[in-house]
Amino acid sequence: MGFFSKDIKSLDDLFVHTLRDVYYAEKEIKNALPDMIDKATNPMLKAGFEQHLQETEGHIERVEQVFEMHGVKAKGVDCPAIDGILEEASEVAGEVDDKQVLDAALIAAAQAVEHYEITRYGTLVEWAKQLGREDCAAVLKKNLDEEKATDKKLTALAESKINLQAAE
Amino acid sequence: MGFFSKDIKSLDDLFVHTLRDVYYAEKEIKNALPDMIDKATNPMLKAGFEQHLQETEGHIERVEQVFEMHGVKAKGVDCPAIDGILEEASEVAGEVDDKQVLDAALIAAAQAVEHYEITRYGTLVEWAKQLGREDCAAVLKKNLDEEKATDKKLTALAESKINLQAAE
Repeated sequence: MGFFSKDIKSLDDLFVHTLRDVYYAEKEIKNALPDMIDKATNPMLKAGFEQHLQETEGHIERVEQVFEMHGVKAKGVDCPAIDGILEEASEVAGEVDDKQVLDAALIAAAQAVEHYEITRYGTLVEWAKQLGREDCAAVLKKNLDEEKATDKKLTALAESKINLQAAE
Repeated sequence: MGFFSKDIKSLDDLFVHTLRDVYYAEKEIKNALPDMIDKATNPMLKAGFEQHLQETEGHIERVEQVFEMHGVKAKGVDCPAIDGILEEASEVAGEVDDKQVLDAALIAAAQAVEHYEITRYGTLVEWAKQLGREDCAAVLKKNLDEEKATDKKLTALAESKINLQAAE
């Protein structure tokens, strides 16, 4: 899709475009997570990020499955949104001069990533249904549900441990 | 805050930094909404964006109030995340060659914005409480609750009207 062409002519085109957006985003998240695992100090946070890296690999496979089910080539498109979210995560982490406060910053950054994925998968599930692709919607909903569960787990960890340690 | 300095030494510093991030984000959203109102075709979507513009002005005032309560100067910091989310919204909108499909793209873009605000205000409310600033938390929670309500309204409008029209 080019910047100056009007290639999106139907909801199906928009669905495929957004699927490519989230495919790119998941791959960038996979690339960013090892650095976040490395920077995290709290063992529970480190383990949570490690688990999320494994889940992300599963999400990429499911998105590839949806491309195949829908009969289009699996490829990404530039996604300035996730680029910006990850750039900001890296910038803020670079400005923190305390390990416990860094953990709080990392968990907030991870939740910004989760919320981006939640909104995109939420939209994709609804569009798939609208297009009569209940099969694609069911696969995408698995990713949506796992992202929501991860976000809740991060909130619980932030409230029970990470924020307390950061405020000490 | 500079890129190569480690200016965030406490949870309080991180709270103020993130408050500045969301302050910048709200102002950019205020600047972006008139274009989205202009591009929207469905009258309910147009009205929804207009209402959100008014709410956004209220959110900016509340964030300024929290700066004052916390005794720091109201100012923004660069927020590559919201820049990326808005850039992507504008790019995708420019690629859509159908008014009904454009409405579906606009509502998805608006929900990506909402989710960014939800994650940031959710984090800020928790950090404010941790810092013993229940007063700041209460003001920030008003913004959080309004963002969540807007996101729900957009989902309902997408499911009941916009996606159906886009699929026609």
